[in-house]
Amino acid sequence: MVTLGISEALRNYVNRVVSLVDPFINEVVQGEPKGLYDASIYLIKAGGKRLRPTFVCLATELFGGDIGRAIPAAAAIEILHNFTLIHDDVMDRDEFRRGVPTVHKVWGEPMAILAGDLLFAKSYEALLKLKDRGVPPNIVTKCVNELTWGAITVAEGQALDMSFESKWDVTLDEYLTMIYKKTAALFMVSVSLGSLVAGASERDVALMKEYAKNVGIAFQIRDDILGLVGDEETLGKPVLSDLREGKKTVLVIYALSKLGDDGVKFLKSILGRRDASLSELRRAADLIAGTGAIEYSERLADEYRRRGLEALSKVDMKNKDAYKLLTELTNYLITRVK
Amino acid sequence: MVTLGISEALRNYVNRVVSLVDPFINEVVQGEPKGLYDASIYLIKAGGKRLRPTFVCLATELFGGDIGRAIPAAAAIEILHNFTLIHDDVMDRDEFRRGVPTVHKVWGEPMAILAGDLLFAKSYEALLKLKDRGVPPNIVTKCVNELTWGAITVAEGQALDMSFESKWDVTLDEYLTMIYKKTAALFMVSVSLGSLVAGASERDVALMKEYAKNVGIAFQIRDDILGLVGDEETLGKPVLSDLREGKKTVLVIYALSKLGDDGVKFLKSILGRRDASLSELRRAADLIAGTGAIEYSERLADEYRRRGLEALSKVDMKNKDAYKLLTELTNYLITRVK
Repeated sequence: MVTLGISEALRNYVNRVVSLVDPFINEVVQGEPKGLYDASIYLIKAGGKRLRPTFVCLATELFGGDIGRAIPAAAAIEILHNFTLIHDDVMDRDEFRRGVPTVHKVWGEPMAILAGDLLFAKSYEALLKLKDRGVPPNIVTKCVNELTWGAITVAEGQALDMSFESKWDVTLDEYLTMIYKKTAALFMVSVSLGSLVAGASERDVALMKEYAKNVGIAFQIRDDILGLVGDEETLGKPVLSDLREGKKTVLVIYALSKLGDDGVKFLKSILGRRDASLSELRRAADLIAGTGAIEYSERLADEYRRRGLEALSKVDMKNKDAYKLLTELTNYLITRVK
Repeated sequence: MVTLGISEALRNYVNRVVSLVDPFINEVVQGEPKGLYDASIYLIKAGGKRLRPTFVCLATELFGGDIGRAIPAAAAIEILHNFTLIHDDVMDRDEFRRGVPTVHKVWGEPMAILAGDLLFAKSYEALLKLKDRGVPPNIVTKCVNELTWGAITVAEGQALDMSFESKWDVTLDEYLTMIYKKTAALFMVSVSLGSLVAGASERDVALMKEYAKNVGIAFQIRDDILGLVGDEETLGKPVLSDLREGKKTVLVIYALSKLGDDGVKFLKSILGRRDASLSELRRAADLIAGTGAIEYSERLADEYRRRGLEALSKVDMKNKDAYKLLTELTNYLITRVK
């Protein structure tokens, strides 16, 4: 596994995005009753890479747009993303994220459901503030359309992911459809919002979405790899929880196709067993790794990275610096360790 | 309790709205994976009065607008309403609604959460179809703004309602704020969407919202009364479940202010006790009724009805028939038995 750091330029860029987006989010996610708003902002304040806002801003700048005008869209996608995380954690019964207990562990499930619902609505409130920054109504409605498509698609992806938990014959294609919907869709929305705000052409918006679709798939494959080899402290969540929850990751799918009867039997006896011991999970992880699943997944992620960058290179770009940063960010995402 | 039937004209109008809105909803809430979409459409198909779509359409016609143009908005508000019902039922652990088991009883909580999320997003998808019917982008963004305000306000109202369950000193003002947010807000959104689509003036939109705010409050007070005196079969949900869940309805608040120490003590020992027997609940209901809480609540609802109709009478209306139907509907809502 190769680990790249990120350049000073990219680090500075992300910090700038955070310094513009986070205050905007804090302003939007504010109100009464206090308990509801505390529960809603909690996960956002706990951290996160602000990856999607960074994509929004870089996409805008790539087409010569003003980052300031894109901030409502950047905030909207981050708020929407956090809504999906809160609800996913309830559905998957996850207890830790970003190194802290999940929302429902702190406030209970009813409040976690409601906090997610509030954030969902607040993401639209944030997006509509594009108007205040001079974005014309017809572009705003296109952005609302994109955000809505993203929210629908993520829900469909989560439904597929959940249905896979009790399904042993998930194919690679089914897996790719699932992660396209569950993960890549919000990357696609991010770049399309940024591009639309900058007034990019339909062709360029489509290319950006093609780029982000491939990057999003590569990102999720990397996530699956980290779920098997990453360490608890760096990831901020319990090690091997994907296995405990019976997630059909690309590594599991590959391993199941390569293992003999005994191996498959053992793996099936562990995956999805909530009370599996750490040593059992470790044995399962070793078995999966032994099939070459990690190397296979890394090659697959690299292929999607390549396809993404190819689409990106074709847009009618106005800003080479933004292009360089997008390329670096893309490369980083499939080699990251957290 | 006076019970009014509804006129043939109003019945025909509602049936016409249903015949236009329901196929539209069925078309929007359609897709893969099937399990998710089945869970999402289930409650909508189980029934419901389509009251909010009726308000959208009557508001449009009141200002001379075309009902056909308003259908996407009418569908959007009904879809949003059903999303809130599905999530509320999970949060309140309700097992029946509209005479059928709730979504989470049939599909489990994770799928119910997800079905609600999907409907939330689908309500925006429906609303955005206003564009296809010739509504200009600046009006569409105003409608998106209204829907978003409604979704935020309903979440805040639900948070208040939940917080009241463990609070004994809820005041009438706090109760009214809660039902304004939890119930009246979506009535306000309904009439504002209908008015906006018809091109009503800002003044008229504000008057319509004032009307709907008061009607919504009266409607919820009536709901609270039915929760105490209505019968199970007509309501489609278990009798006295408000008491079992410890809801601080206007009747409970009134009764607590009128009862002596022993009565208060008994009521507190029953309210919110999930395992209370039916005979205990009945005794509590009788105690509440004995304070005159029902008559008090009926007078209160009537006062809000009066204020609502006063605001309605002031708009610059183009269609007297729509006005008559709105008035009849308003009067019906606070005397209905289901």
